[in-house]
Amino acid sequence: MKWDAWGDPALAKELSADIKGLLAAALGVTGDAEPGPTADEVVLRPSRLTDADLKALADAVGEAHVSAADADRLPRAGGKSTPDLLRRRSREAQDAPDAVVLPGSEDEIAAVLALCAERRIAVVPFGGGTSVVGGLDPERGGLTAVISLDLRRLDQLLDLDETSGEALLGAGLTGPAAEALLADRGYELGHYPQSFRFATIGGFAATRSSGQDSAGHGRFDEMVRGLRVVTPVGVLDLGRAPASAAGPDLRELFLGSEGTLGVITAVRVRVHPLPAVKAYEAWSFPDFATGTAALRAVEQQGTGPTVIRLSDEAETMVNLAMTEQIGGSPAVSGCLAVTVFEGTDALVAARHQLTREVLLAAGGTSLGEAPARAWEHGRFSAPYLRDSLLGAGALCETLETAANWSRLPHLRVAVTEALTTALPGALVLCHISHVYPTGASLYFTVVAALGEDPLTRWTAAKHAAGDAIVAAGGTITHHHAVGADHRPWMTDEIGELGVRILRAVKAELDPAGILNPGKLIP
Amino acid sequence: MKWDAWGDPALAKELSADIKGLLAAALGVTGDAEPGPTADEVVLRPSRLTDADLKALADAVGEAHVSAADADRLPRAGGKSTPDLLRRRSREAQDAPDAVVLPGSEDEIAAVLALCAERRIAVVPFGGGTSVVGGLDPERGGLTAVISLDLRRLDQLLDLDETSGEALLGAGLTGPAAEALLADRGYELGHYPQSFRFATIGGFAATRSSGQDSAGHGRFDEMVRGLRVVTPVGVLDLGRAPASAAGPDLRELFLGSEGTLGVITAVRVRVHPLPAVKAYEAWSFPDFATGTAALRAVEQQGTGPTVIRLSDEAETMVNLAMTEQIGGSPAVSGCLAVTVFEGTDALVAARHQLTREVLLAAGGTSLGEAPARAWEHGRFSAPYLRDSLLGAGALCETLETAANWSRLPHLRVAVTEALTTALPGALVLCHISHVYPTGASLYFTVVAALGEDPLTRWTAAKHAAGDAIVAAGGTITHHHAVGADHRPWMTDEIGELGVRILRAVKAELDPAGILNPGKLIP
Repeated sequence: MKWDAWGDPALAKELSADIKGLLAAALGVTGDAEPGPTADEVVLRPSRLTDADLKALADAVGEAHVSAADADRLPRAGGKSTPDLLRRRSREAQDAPDAVVLPGSEDEIAAVLALCAERRIAVVPFGGGTSVVGGLDPERGGLTAVISLDLRRLDQLLDLDETSGEALLGAGLTGPAAEALLADRGYELGHYPQSFRFATIGGFAATRSSGQDSAGHGRFDEMVRGLRVVTPVGVLDLGRAPASAAGPDLRELFLGSEGTLGVITAVRVRVHPLPAVKAYEAWSFPDFATGTAALRAVEQQGTGPTVIRLSDEAETMVNLAMTEQIGGSPAVSGCLAVTVFEGTDALVAARHQLTREVLLAAGGTSLGEAPARAWEHGRFSAPYLRDSLLGAGALCETLETAANWSRLPHLRVAVTEALTTALPGALVLCHISHVYPTGASLYFTVVAALGEDPLTRWTAAKHAAGDAIVAAGGTITHHHAVGADHRPWMTDEIGELGVRILRAVKAELDPAGILNPGKLIP
Repeated sequence: MKWDAWGDPALAKELSADIKGLLAAALGVTGDAEPGPTADEVVLRPSRLTDADLKALADAVGEAHVSAADADRLPRAGGKSTPDLLRRRSREAQDAPDAVVLPGSEDEIAAVLALCAERRIAVVPFGGGTSVVGGLDPERGGLTAVISLDLRRLDQLLDLDETSGEALLGAGLTGPAAEALLADRGYELGHYPQSFRFATIGGFAATRSSGQDSAGHGRFDEMVRGLRVVTPVGVLDLGRAPASAAGPDLRELFLGSEGTLGVITAVRVRVHPLPAVKAYEAWSFPDFATGTAALRAVEQQGTGPTVIRLSDEAETMVNLAMTEQIGGSPAVSGCLAVTVFEGTDALVAARHQLTREVLLAAGGTSLGEAPARAWEHGRFSAPYLRDSLLGAGALCETLETAANWSRLPHLRVAVTEALTTALPGALVLCHISHVYPTGASLYFTVVAALGEDPLTRWTAAKHAAGDAIVAAGGTITHHHAVGADHRPWMTDEIGELGVRILRAVKAELDPAGILNPGKLIP
């Protein structure tokens, strides 16, 4: 993962002539931005850890697995939001974790937490580094220093129960590494967020991740059957059965806990046989309202697509859902919807047929397979484009929410207005990324000229959007999590008493307050 | 609801000649048990509330809604487990709540909780009174008195969002009352536990209830989109969106909280249009292992029956799943499975067909509709039979668990052995009542001669079964909840640290410890 941009440097995407044309026409962006510093030019504030601290950490995990070198600190200095990237490109002194620690076992994690509590060192658990909500900010929370606890060494398939369809996966496994281990045995997890190639199993759990196939396979929280969590006061092993009435479900306290309550070390997940068959069909709807009603009918009738998503008119016009064709002449009129079906031959055929009938009755026009395959081909590429846009002088960022179907139209208008008021002239594109019987998520992409002081301008726009979301009855985040960036709205989300509950749980598990301070809990 | 038995006196079931024959042949039970006392003959210990306490309660909810009369206290003295019924039939002095309080609003509940905290009075929230795990025991937990907080006046359909398919239901609505209000508008909740006719919406949430249609409509906890909870320190309103990544899901702390953390006053649930079509098909499998594998294949492939259940050989032989034919000559050989499908015409046809193919391939023989309809006809009647059995000198009780598919065979053997060792000569029958992709529940019915001191003997058998469940990796309860009876196994279920979390949350929300003491939390 690049330190100052998304992903694998080999996969960086040049802007096409079509995209450059779009930037010039829509935003007046024609020039290039000032290039940022190289990694060697970045100035990090010096590590605050003492030699004795580093010695204690080395005793806990082995000398080879502790580093206070800038080259290790810089890639863990934050996540991958546009504000993160803008901060990384600064030539002023930057903050970063005071050391990087790579534990190899639960016992080592427990030892690190114990010594950090004693020495008043904050701990930021680190998976794939893909947070876009400030979840990895190296905040010290009033303590003396902060370390990045990188979990990549917890990278094993610990168990596969083929009869039950359950796998126990190490928290540090990336999406592709987990799928490769499962595929060797004929199984699939089926969790494909846009961060899939870099994000980890532990991160999926800690942030309540959703994937592009969540309509079929469920959100990650729905896949989780069990969790192991190391806290400063002991280890939890939660989830005994596929379902239980034995009191509150404590797994649901650690799903979404973002490293503030404990370190997730292993996750037991539902897996399924690799699909025998895949079917694709894209659809066009005359407008977003008609398309939204169609998706609602599919989901409320329960016809069972694995993937279903709907772009609004603006997204459709710029081909945003088909990464290779962005900015080209519009490939689809109206609003593009994509459906994909996976499973056995009979199941795919039945579900595809039931879904077609609902979509046709709801005013859809079939576009055949090609646009759906084009979407799938580019499904993990969008973040690379954002980096190239930034390089070309355009600010591009996303945000998302979810609400009941009845609130969705007003929510979309309110968020769009908040963004275009704060960033005059910005392009605001929207799609329904996830559907449920009772509602759906809205995913917004904002593109604007970078201009002067983009960090301040984006922060103001983001706050306006957050306030609009809360006022319109949406959740402050459907799948990006809370981190530092959404923390100001957590009291709106769960109420003051809800915040008190989180604080009480944290005080019990993390009395020294070392775990990811400044995130999630107001 | 009868004070000393299940349900509506008008629906009491006489034992058929077939059942009497079975009791005589299998258990040597031929005589009649000693009849218990009438309600007038029962002696309750006097109320411990002072006149000032009762005055304060009357000030909070109105004089008409407070009673310390024995006629009101006796029906809330406990739940409906066989131990409850045996205790009710005792002629020694019985314990009971010191008063019954019927609040009409959240404000009244808040006022009651405040005065109970001040006067050190314990509060047992009361819905339909159908607990079979001691969840309603009138424990004072070291306080001066205990009241039953009966929520029946919270009986309104507060909102119906037809677009989103969500209804906001008062916690005191019984199953039939809620379904009638929804059916008037063309909707159904679809939650049918055996307690359906008496249990309440709030009780379903507080105990993580499962229904007989949960394969299709989900467990009650999966239906819940939002919860309102009045605690001694404030009100919670949880659940903003169909799904969220905004931190831990606090709804999951109150689902299954059994009145120990707050009083659930309203529940927002997913509802669906009344089904247009229902299809029924029963199946026979040569043995339980073959039938279990067949149900597993259906669930892991996701073919979508609304109801699917499987009786073992013993249950099948005595026709237990077809209440009207129990004890008659065996109607089905091997193991009986029941499937039901609900929804639109096209959906039911597709799901039925996909399921048939899987069941046929897995060794099933179709029995047509009749046995499935017979099961449905008697689905809520079994508890009435238990009362008649008790009257005839036979102890009949049930218990249940769940585990992964791979653990299920050993779990069944271990629990059966524990029960037959503790109660020599007992009949132990079993069925799979609920299925999930990764596992299933096992529901055991135990019938034994009442004999000497049945309460002590059953308690010993129940403890042996609980220990066997925990040792075999099952959950201590899949859908009956914890109450007082399963509390000894909660540390096995969630670990010592899990118990500390529950205690920390309770200390925050209920600092005076008034809410349902002695239940759930060890």
